[in-house]
Amino acid sequence: MDIEDIQSALGGTQKGQSLHDLVRLLYPICRSITGEGVRQTLRHLQQHIPLEICEVASGTKVFDWTVPLEWTIRDAYIATTAGERVVDFQNSNLHVVSYSTPVNGRYKLADLAGHLYSLPDRPDWIPYRTSYYKENWGFCLTHRQLTELKDSEYEVCIDSTLSPGHLNYGEVFLPGEREEEVLISCHVCHPSLCNDNLSGIAVATYLAKAIGSVDRKYSYRFLFLPGTIGSITWLARNRERAHLIRHGIVLTGIGDSGDVTYKRSRQGNAYIDRAFVHVLKQRGTGHQVVDFSPYGYDERQYCSPGFNLPVGCFMRTTHGEYPEYHTSADNLEFVVPRVLQDSLNILLQAVYVLENDVVPLSLNPHCEPQLGKRGLYRAIAGQKEGAQREMALLWVLNLSDGEHSLLDIAERANVSFEVIHAAARALRECKLLEDVPIDSTTRREGDQL
Amino acid sequence: MDIEDIQSALGGTQKGQSLHDLVRLLYPICRSITGEGVRQTLRHLQQHIPLEICEVASGTKVFDWTVPLEWTIRDAYIATTAGERVVDFQNSNLHVVSYSTPVNGRYKLADLAGHLYSLPDRPDWIPYRTSYYKENWGFCLTHRQLTELKDSEYEVCIDSTLSPGHLNYGEVFLPGEREEEVLISCHVCHPSLCNDNLSGIAVATYLAKAIGSVDRKYSYRFLFLPGTIGSITWLARNRERAHLIRHGIVLTGIGDSGDVTYKRSRQGNAYIDRAFVHVLKQRGTGHQVVDFSPYGYDERQYCSPGFNLPVGCFMRTTHGEYPEYHTSADNLEFVVPRVLQDSLNILLQAVYVLENDVVPLSLNPHCEPQLGKRGLYRAIAGQKEGAQREMALLWVLNLSDGEHSLLDIAERANVSFEVIHAAARALRECKLLEDVPIDSTTRREGDQL
Amino acid sequence: MDIEDIQSALGGTQKGQSLHDLVRLLYPICRSITGEGVRQTLRHLQQHIPLEICEVASGTKVFDWTVPLEWTIRDAYIATTAGERVVDFQNSNLHVVSYSTPVNGRYKLADLAGHLYSLPDRPDWIPYRTSYYKENWGFCLTHRQLTELKDSEYEVCIDSTLSPGHLNYGEVFLPGEREEEVLISCHVCHPSLCNDNLSGIAVATYLAKAIGSVDRKYSYRFLFLPGTIGSITWLARNRERAHLIRHGIVLTGIGDSGDVTYKRSRQGNAYIDRAFVHVLKQRGTGHQVVDFSPYGYDERQYCSPGFNLPVGCFMRTTHGEYPEYHTSADNLEFVVPRVLQDSLNILLQAVYVLENDVVPLSLNPHCEPQLGKRGLYRAIAGQKEGAQREMALLWVLNLSDGEHSLLDIAERANVSFEVIHAAARALRECKLLEDVPIDSTTRREGDQL
Repeated sequence: MDIEDIQSALGGTQKGQSLHDLVRLLYPICRSITGEGVRQTLRHLQQHIPLEICEVASGTKVFDWTVPLEWTIRDAYIATTAGERVVDFQNSNLHVVSYSTPVNGRYKLADLAGHLYSLPDRPDWIPYRTSYYKENWGFCLTHRQLTELKDSEYEVCIDSTLSPGHLNYGEVFLPGEREEEVLISCHVCHPSLCNDNLSGIAVATYLAKAIGSVDRKYSYRFLFLPGTIGSITWLARNRERAHLIRHGIVLTGIGDSGDVTYKRSRQGNAYIDRAFVHVLKQRGTGHQVVDFSPYGYDERQYCSPGFNLPVGCFMRTTHGEYPEYHTSADNLEFVVPRVLQDSLNILLQAVYVLENDVVPLSLNPHCEPQLGKRGLYRAIAGQKEGAQREMALLWVLNLSDGEHSLLDIAERANVSFEVIHAAARALRECKLLEDVPIDSTTRREGDQL
Repeated sequence: MDIEDIQSALGGTQKGQSLHDLVRLLYPICRSITGEGVRQTLRHLQQHIPLEICEVASGTKVFDWTVPLEWTIRDAYIATTAGERVVDFQNSNLHVVSYSTPVNGRYKLADLAGHLYSLPDRPDWIPYRTSYYKENWGFCLTHRQLTELKDSEYEVCIDSTLSPGHLNYGEVFLPGEREEEVLISCHVCHPSLCNDNLSGIAVATYLAKAIGSVDRKYSYRFLFLPGTIGSITWLARNRERAHLIRHGIVLTGIGDSGDVTYKRSRQGNAYIDRAFVHVLKQRGTGHQVVDFSPYGYDERQYCSPGFNLPVGCFMRTTHGEYPEYHTSADNLEFVVPRVLQDSLNILLQAVYVLENDVVPLSLNPHCEPQLGKRGLYRAIAGQKEGAQREMALLWVLNLSDGEHSLLDIAERANVSFEVIHAAARALRECKLLEDVPIDSTTRREGDQL
Repeated sequence: MDIEDIQSALGGTQKGQSLHDLVRLLYPICRSITGEGVRQTLRHLQQHIPLEICEVASGTKVFDWTVPLEWTIRDAYIATTAGERVVDFQNSNLHVVSYSTPVNGRYKLADLAGHLYSLPDRPDWIPYRTSYYKENWGFCLTHRQLTELKDSEYEVCIDSTLSPGHLNYGEVFLPGEREEEVLISCHVCHPSLCNDNLSGIAVATYLAKAIGSVDRKYSYRFLFLPGTIGSITWLARNRERAHLIRHGIVLTGIGDSGDVTYKRSRQGNAYIDRAFVHVLKQRGTGHQVVDFSPYGYDERQYCSPGFNLPVGCFMRTTHGEYPEYHTSADNLEFVVPRVLQDSLNILLQAVYVLENDVVPLSLNPHCEPQLGKRGLYRAIAGQKEGAQREMALLWVLNLSDGEHSLLDIAERANVSFEVIHAAARALRECKLLEDVPIDSTTRREGDQL
C-alpha cells in the first residue's frame, strides 16, 4: 500500500464535499441504539462499501448487559388543548427523549415539568437527551419554547413502541495478507447530530472505500455500532478473536473546525498511539495528545481490562468541550467539508505508517557506505541541496541495526515517516539494506508492526 | 481503620490547642542528648500514651559510636565581680552551650571571647549551640548582651557534671493485625526550642493516642529519641528487627506557619513517599517535595546504606531555612495551634492510605459492567451531578486488573484516595470487585501495601 | 593520575599561547585527504609527541570504500590573457577546489561559470570546497574577485596530479595499566582553516604530551586522520581491536570563542557522555549538550551500527552554525589562545574522571560513622565552615553501597567529581571505605569505569 495508491483511490473526495454530502443525506434519520433509524443508515452505507448488517435479538445476554427492546418512534408532540403543536417531533427528532415510553393524554403544565429539558444559557438550541436503561419519557425543547408554555394544560403524545426486536450494527471486513487486524470503530446511534456520529460515519465509509481498493498487509475491520451496547455486543460475540486486533481507532467528532485531539489507548504507548502522535507531530498544525481515561466513546469497552486492546480515539474538539455538543447546533453547518477531508487524510497517513513499517538491517554496518558512488550524495561538498534527503539516508543507515523500526527512526530523526520510508527504499535498491523478517525480532512494548 | 474512627478518637484536639498546650508544658525543660531533662519529658508523655522509658548505660558501644556520659546542669552564669549576673541560665536554658564541662573562676574578658556565641544580625536572639562530642564549654547570649560586656574581668560559673549514667529514649508500640510496622520518630534532645523538637513530640503523642484507639492493619512504633545518638542506639539494639519497618516518617519542625515540606526516603519512591506526595497533592495548598539528602534529622540513620529503610521526613519550613531556627525565637509564639493540628491531620491521612490500600480485581473485566441497573449511575445521560463519583467508579473498574493498588488508581485518576477508596467499596458491595490477597501479587518497588 | 600531575606536566601552556603558536605554524600548509600536506603536518607533530606516521596504498579496500589516489598540488591560477593572475593559489590554498584534476588552457568566462565558487553574502571571504569522490576541478574566490572578472577569456591553470600513492595518518599510543583504551581523534585534512582542524590538532597534541607524562589507568590512543576516509581506514585495519575502546572523543572546532557543545555518543548515555556532561555542568559557564545525529565528524564512523563505540564529539560552536565555517575567515584571529587552553582543561577534567572513578563500599554501612572522633567534623555544631566538604563526606558514606560509582555520587549530590573524590580519599584513609574491585560489580549501561 502506497500513499499514492490510496490518494488515487480517494477519487473526487479531495475537497471533502462528498464526505459532507453523505453527512447531509444521513442527517434527517432518527437513529437510536436500536430501531429502524440504524438499519436505514446502514442500508445507505451499503451503497458505498461491502457492509454486512448484523442483528442480535432483544434479550440476548452480552457480558453484564442485555440487548434492550427495540424502540420505534412514529410521532411525538406537545399541543395546546386547541390542537396546536407547540413542540413537534416532525420538526426535529431531538424533541423527544430517546427511548421514551409511549404517552398519550392531557397533562397539567406543573406535572410536565419533570419531563421537559431545555438549555437556559442557549435559548434557541434543543438539547439531546436519552433514557436508555431506565423507563422514562420526556421532551427536549428550546428554552424559548419552554418559557412560552403558559397554558395550564397540554395534550402530550409520544407515539412510540418498546418491544422485542433487534440490535443492529454494520461490519465491513477487508482481508489483507495477514490475519492480524486494524479496527476502525464509530457510533451510529445519534439522531440529527452531525459531528457526534455522522462525521465519524462518513469518514469511516470513505476510509473503507479507499483501503478496499488497494493492497493491504493487514486485514481491516470497520464497525458501525450503537454506542456502548453495540461495542459490548460485538466484543461478546467476538471474544475469542479480539486478540487479532493489533491496532485500533475509535472515530468521533472529527468534522468540527477545532484542533485535532488524539486520546491514547489504555496501554499508553501502543504502536497505534505512536503512529498517530508521529503523524500529528509531523503535520505541524495544532493538536493535542491526551492520556487514556475511562470516559468517552467505545474505547471504554475495547480498553476494558479484560481486553486491553491497543485502541485509541481520534477526535477534533473533545466531546463536551464545545457548546454545540449534544444540541441541535451540532448541525450541517457545524461540520466542515475541508475538516472531514483533513481527518480522512490523517487516518490515511496513520494507516500508511502501519502498513509500511519494517525493521531494516544494514548490510554495511561497519562505517558509512560510500553513498557518492551510488549517486546518493551531493557531488560538491559544502552545498546545501538535498540535505534533508541525505540526512534521512544517514539516519536509516545508522539505526538499521535490527533494533529500530522505520517509525523508531522517524521519531528519533524527527523527520516524517514518508521521508524515512523513501530513504529506506532507496537504500534497499542499492543492496545496502534488507528488512528483518518480523518474527525473527523481539519487539518491545509499543513496537508491534 | 476508617478516617471517621480516627477523627472521633481525636476528641477535643480539633483546633490544635491541646497540642500547643503540651508544647507549652514541655517548653521550660532543659533537654539535652542525655540527662534528667529527657527523662522528665518522657515521664510527662506517659500521662498521655503507653510509653516505655528505655535506658542504655554510658560507655555502651552502638555501632561506630559510644553512649556518652550523662550531662547534669544545675546553674550557669557570667557575673560582674560585684556579683551581678549578666548572663544567667535561670533566665534561659539556651544560655549555656549544651554539654559544657564545669567552670568556676574569674576570667579576663579577652580570654572569654572564644567561649561566647551571639548573632550580630539578630541582636535580641540567643543562639543555640552544642558541643556533644568534643569537651568544651561556652555561653550563648544576645548580641546586645555581648556588646554590653565592658568590664575587664567576670566571674564565670557552669555548675555541670559529666559522669557515667544513661541515655534515655521513649518507645510506644501499638500492635496491629500484622507484624509489619509503621515507624514514627521524633527527637527529644533540644532545650527550650518549640518548633525544633516540641512540635514533633506533641504531634507524635496525639497521633499515637489516636491510632491507639482504633483497629489497625499495621503495628505502629513511636520513638522519642535524642537526635543521632538515640536513633543509632535504637537501631543497634533492634538491628535484627529493623526490616519489619515497612513505612516510616521522621517528624521535625511541623508547627511553624510555613508550607509543608516532604523529604523523600533514600529509596526515593517508597510507598511512604508516594502516600505523602499523594496526600499533599490532593490537599492542594502549597507544599514542596524534596529528594533525599544525607543531612537533616534521624532519617540519616534509618536511611544509612546498611538499613536503607523506607523512611521519609515530614517538616514545614526546612530546618536552617528560617531565621528563628536554633535560636530563642523558636518559641511558643513561633508554633501555631492550627498548624500543629494541620500536621496531625496530614499524618492521619497518610496513615489512612497505608491502612486501607489494597489491590482490587474486577470480577467483570470484559467491557464495563452496567452500573445503572445497580443504582450506581445517573438515570438521564447528559446531566452533570455525581460526575466525580462516577469517574471514580470507572477508573477503579478500568484499572482493577490485579496490577494496580487503590493508590496507583488514585494517582493515575488524579482523585483523592478517599474518593477512590469509597468507589472501590461500593463496587465490592455490588460483587463487581474483590481484593487480591496481598501475598499473591508481585509488587513493584514502591508498591508495598 | 592526579589533576595536579597533569597540570604540572602542562608546563608553559597555561595561557594557551603555545597551543596557538602550533596552530600558526601549521596554518600555511595545504592539507587534503591525501598528499604531502598531511605528511608535512604529521612530521611536525613528531617534534612534540611519539607519533607514528602510518601509510596505506591508494586502491586499498577499506570496508565499502577505496583509498583514493594521492593528490599533489603545485600551483593554480586564473590569469588574464595578458598574464596577470587574478586568482592565485600562492595567495591562499583555499582558491583551488581540493582534489581538482589538472587543467591548463584558455577558457571563455561563460564556460568557467560552473567551476567558480564564491559567497555573495560575504564578498571578502573565500569559500572552501572539495570534490573528493567525483572527478572535477574548480576555483574558490571572493565574491568581489568574481564580480571583477570581466574579460571574455582567461588563462586557467591547475598544476595538480592525481596518482597512486598513499593515505597517511598519525597515531600515538600511550600504554596504561589496562589494555582498555581511551580514544582521542581529530582530523588533519583541511588546508588553511584554523578552527576546523588546527584547533583539534593543537589541543590533541598537548593533551597527548600531558597524559604521556603521568601514570595512567587506561591506555590512550590519539589519531590524527583525514576526515571520513581516515577513520574508515583505521577502523578497517583495527576492526578486531576496536572493542578495546572504552571511551572516546572526537575533537573539532574547539578554538572559537563560542560556548562549548558536547554531542553525545550514539549510545546516548555512555560513561564518556556522563563524564563530559558532569564536567560541563560543574564548570558552570554556558554549554550545550546535544544528542547524537549521524552527521558531523568522525564520530559518524566510530558510531556506525557495526561498531557503536562510546565516542562523543567535543566542539565549541557547532560546525555550520558560524559564518566563518569553511571560509577564509576561519583564520588565526578566529581561534583564541585562552579558548584553546580552556578546551584542553575541560578534556583533562574529563580524563581525570575516567582515571579516578571507582565504586566505593562503606565499611561502616549501619548508621553514620562518628566523623568527629576522626577529625572529619566541625567541633561546634551550628557553625557553617566546611559545610560542602562535610556534605561530600555524608554523600559518599550514604551511597557507598557497592552500587554507585564516585561519578554516580557526584551527579546525585550535584557536587564536582573532584570534591567527591577527595572525600572518598579521606574516608579511605580512615578505613571507613574501600574500593570494590571492578570485575566483582555488575555495571549498568553507562557505568563502564
